[in-house]
Amino acid sequence: MMQEARRAARATRESGRQTRDALLAAATDLFLEHGDGVPITQICAAAGAHPNQVTYYFGSKERLFVEVACAAVLRAGKRAEDDAAAAETVGDYTEKLVGSLLGPGGPSVELFVEAMLMTGRRGELREHITDTLRTLHSSGENALIRTLMRTGWQLRAGIDVEAKAFWSAIFGLAIQKTATGESFGYSLGEAVAVIFASLRIPESVRESTL
Amino acid sequence: MMQEARRAARATRESGRQTRDALLAAATDLFLEHGDGVPITQICAAAGAHPNQVTYYFGSKERLFVEVACAAVLRAGKRAEDDAAAAETVGDYTEKLVGSLLGPGGPSVELFVEAMLMTGRRGELREHITDTLRTLHSSGENALIRTLMRTGWQLRAGIDVEAKAFWSAIFGLAIQKTATGESFGYSLGEAVAVIFASLRIPESVRESTL
Repeated sequence: MMQEARRAARATRESGRQTRDALLAAATDLFLEHGDGVPITQICAAAGAHPNQVTYYFGSKERLFVEVACAAVLRAGKRAEDDAAAAETVGDYTEKLVGSLLGPGGPSVELFVEAMLMTGRRGELREHITDTLRTLHSSGENALIRTLMRTGWQLRAGIDVEAKAFWSAIFGLAIQKTATGESFGYSLGEAVAVIFASLRIPESVRESTL
Repeated sequence: MMQEARRAARATRESGRQTRDALLAAATDLFLEHGDGVPITQICAAAGAHPNQVTYYFGSKERLFVEVACAAVLRAGKRAEDDAAAAETVGDYTEKLVGSLLGPGGPSVELFVEAMLMTGRRGELREHITDTLRTLHSSGENALIRTLMRTGWQLRAGIDVEAKAFWSAIFGLAIQKTATGESFGYSLGEAVAVIFASLRIPESVRESTL
């Protein structure tokens, strides 16, 4: 009987995990495609779940949105590092990294910017965003900035300030790019030029082999 | 009789302008306070107007939002230049400029970031945003960057790239600051450090008198 009860509890937990995962997967697809305006009923329909389950597993639609956005930007950051890994020069590395964050990673970066704005108005969502920013900043330190440091590029400020400068530029560029389209000069080449200028990467370092 | 008709038409125009201005003023206050989630009925109630009049004068709530956000960020940019005008060194100038944009100007900068995200999903709003960015960039060129150039600071890239780097950093910082609060290190001092790093303003220039 005890064993029976444990088995039932395990089955419930397992089905709960599946519902939670299905909600996250459906929400990720729909938020990336349409932004935070997607009705919760549409997400539930896609996940085969009930709106009550969003409240049960995530607390609110806003928390679900923040969870999706944080996971998406961390994946985009990881993917950008992978996309840049095979580069042979600093210039190529930076172009691949920025190209990945603003190209395939762009919708995820935008989602995270939306989540940051939402958090400004709802303090209770702050912790997850702050943790994600901390992870992004330390990944940034480990990726582009440490790569640059190996080539003899000079840190101008603390590495934390450099990481903030890098991510501020990425967030700022992603928003301007989505708002203006390619027409206003946020092509990949121009975005890379802004990052080179922001981090003050000199020509000589740009050609360094990795 | 003709004169009577002309007078009536003028009175209608005048009353239309007043309704339009009242809607803009109410929408500016409410959007700055609560973001784009404010119901249109609340704006109309505050302006003594009818929801139909939003459609008549602005086309849609989204267009009204974009018009408010563009005007707000341009005012914040102008105010930042005024706040910095009395500074006596480059360091002081930059601190006052950034402090104004992220301090009293912060809600306006955030509103404009929200408008840019909205535009990414609605191409028809793009033109107003693009014009506003163009104005901000050329004001940026005229303010901080031209000020720096007078001190012997070296442009590393085209002035348009420098202006993009400046505004990308401001947008990125404003969002991170609102999302994390002061706790995560987006105090004024740290924001100024990021801008100094982004524009690579050396110590020597920082102390230059203006």
